[in-house]
Amino acid sequence: MAATLSPHSSAQLAPPASLDPLVVPQRLLLGPGPSNADPRVIAAMNHQPIGHLDAAYLAMMDDVQDLLRYTWQTTNPLTYAVAGTGSAAMEATLANAVEPGDRVLVCVKGYFGHRLADMAQRYGADVVTLHCPWGEAFTLDQLTAALDQHRPAVLAIVHAETSTGVRQPLEGLGAACAAHDCLLLVDTVTSLGGVPIWLDQWQVDLAYSCSQKGLSCAPGISPFTMSPRAEAKLARRRQPVANWYLDANLLRKYWGPERVYHHTAPVNLTYALREALRLLADEGLEARWQRHQQTAAYFWAGLADLGLTCHVEASLRLPTLTTVRVPDGVDAKAVSRQLMADYNIEIGGGLGELGGKVWRIGLMGYNSQRQHVDTLLQALGEVLHKV
Amino acid sequence: MAATLSPHSSAQLAPPASLDPLVVPQRLLLGPGPSNADPRVIAAMNHQPIGHLDAAYLAMMDDVQDLLRYTWQTTNPLTYAVAGTGSAAMEATLANAVEPGDRVLVCVKGYFGHRLADMAQRYGADVVTLHCPWGEAFTLDQLTAALDQHRPAVLAIVHAETSTGVRQPLEGLGAACAAHDCLLLVDTVTSLGGVPIWLDQWQVDLAYSCSQKGLSCAPGISPFTMSPRAEAKLARRRQPVANWYLDANLLRKYWGPERVYHHTAPVNLTYALREALRLLADEGLEARWQRHQQTAAYFWAGLADLGLTCHVEASLRLPTLTTVRVPDGVDAKAVSRQLMADYNIEIGGGLGELGGKVWRIGLMGYNSQRQHVDTLLQALGEVLHKV
Repeated sequence: MAATLSPHSSAQLAPPASLDPLVVPQRLLLGPGPSNADPRVIAAMNHQPIGHLDAAYLAMMDDVQDLLRYTWQTTNPLTYAVAGTGSAAMEATLANAVEPGDRVLVCVKGYFGHRLADMAQRYGADVVTLHCPWGEAFTLDQLTAALDQHRPAVLAIVHAETSTGVRQPLEGLGAACAAHDCLLLVDTVTSLGGVPIWLDQWQVDLAYSCSQKGLSCAPGISPFTMSPRAEAKLARRRQPVANWYLDANLLRKYWGPERVYHHTAPVNLTYALREALRLLADEGLEARWQRHQQTAAYFWAGLADLGLTCHVEASLRLPTLTTVRVPDGVDAKAVSRQLMADYNIEIGGGLGELGGKVWRIGLMGYNSQRQHVDTLLQALGEVLHKV
Repeated sequence: MAATLSPHSSAQLAPPASLDPLVVPQRLLLGPGPSNADPRVIAAMNHQPIGHLDAAYLAMMDDVQDLLRYTWQTTNPLTYAVAGTGSAAMEATLANAVEPGDRVLVCVKGYFGHRLADMAQRYGADVVTLHCPWGEAFTLDQLTAALDQHRPAVLAIVHAETSTGVRQPLEGLGAACAAHDCLLLVDTVTSLGGVPIWLDQWQVDLAYSCSQKGLSCAPGISPFTMSPRAEAKLARRRQPVANWYLDANLLRKYWGPERVYHHTAPVNLTYALREALRLLADEGLEARWQRHQQTAAYFWAGLADLGLTCHVEASLRLPTLTTVRVPDGVDAKAVSRQLMADYNIEIGGGLGELGGKVWRIGLMGYNSQRQHVDTLLQALGEVLHKV
């Protein structure tokens, strides 16, 4: 039989040594993400795929769009989920908004600002960066002055810096950008579903997020939105979007009423995202924000009881992600390793210039619960006592 | 409480009208993809996420790489799964292999050849296309003559054209490309795991696939590989890869021994893909190819009994995807609609110049079973009798 298939079948490489069925360890995920998913979301994923043009699937896509608009507080028609992780949605904003030669002002106050600058450069942007110390936020005056100085086509800024735990206030920035004919691009990866966001009131033009933090879904599908102003810039492009997979012109035809095939959608992740967003709407946005704030405040009080200090001042501190200073003489990585080895708890280490100096502890979405705070604080106290 | 969160909380958009929990209809997916997943694969997905740098997760990534090398019959070190659908993996090959100004020869014999040409152009390639009728394959002489004429840096060709059902013979093409210092890029979306492939023996330099066809996994994570020759071209680039998310330089550091964070991996889809590939290795590649060939032959015989004709001649006909000619006077879409409405069976319609002229019927991976052929043929016979 093999000979009828092809002349080469005798030279086959051997399969790898026999592999065992999958075993997934149980972890409490209190790092910068992924977080544990709501069990109801995992259950929603546990179905056979259906077709990406099946009427039942198209209805789910519509639900996801409506729910994302609510979650972001926007009426943007172009609001959908990218078939990739948060970094793909991040890239989608730049791929669509930037034409070669456009000046892009990237406000860097942590690792993900650097990533935005890197990505924008690859799309041919003339990138200018504005910096502030890791652990602080920009003032509106600083940002307005930079707009005056650089006259960018796009200003990109991270709302919730996952590397520092800082919440960047955004009030007034959208109006300043609009006055400069500049699009405002905001990373909401670590804020969506956990920290107050009003995209339309803030006049945000482009935003993206991920599924596995405040939304309590599995990773791999990612919210994306662009305002009518951003759409107008897209329509004026002289060159096609360099990225076919993330081209909003093509994705609009699939997510919109035309329903033109673009890619085979990640259907099981859509099941999960719809369920995650539905549960969020059931809880209510404000109730959810309050839960995050209250759980975080409870955690911060507990940290103080352990003699530990937060890296970010209280008014700018994210409820979703806390950077905790590593006490002098303590090996940050040894503590993380011990928490994983003895307690199956994952926390994150510092990134970039905060490497070794902080732990990053997430209380996001489904995981924003007092019982998890108690579990973590007890384990952390015991580990710190040992190391 | 809301007042402490933000000054704007009073102006909140309302949530969508209350949504019901997810209901997923049960379909038999016999279109061009997605296909039904092996139930053991769906079960593997049904776990909480773990961290993308968790030691247990890194071990799964290694398993996936080994299993993909076996499935593709390659020893390429750079073999991994892209965090997106097959179109993202397609784009990954071009993004990494093409520098602006590179001549890329795209062999177009169906819809997906056109897509390759579109993507390559967006990366600044000087694209030349070679065409043959939809439903036929290129001869080696045609391809070698085009290499002589155009001297491309990359030749891109689809092994299994999902729009036509044609298997493109690849024997000898890799050697011809190598002699012309040209990289050979092959789409194996509808062949991997169902149709014989020997990437190394065929001297293929870049390849990609999807998860939801021959591999019987959910969609959203996609195989990608590049040869050492393609890596050498990547290393010689004067410009960075225009696509951050798919940049093999960065992904190599995450999938390789350095384990540098790049993106938050789609961990649940990795669970699923590992299980799908493990089941494939358990069955054995040759046994799996034979199963596909035998199921397809059984189907083709049954089509003849119904008086239906295949669009592609037998020697070039894919076992995974059959294009069936729509008889004169029959409304192709009405038949598909009826199969879905009355039998919950999905089949595909014709794309591009085959629109309305063929149905596309997939028997892929887990779905390559005689019982599904029987189910479909009976339903098709009944529907054709009615319309």
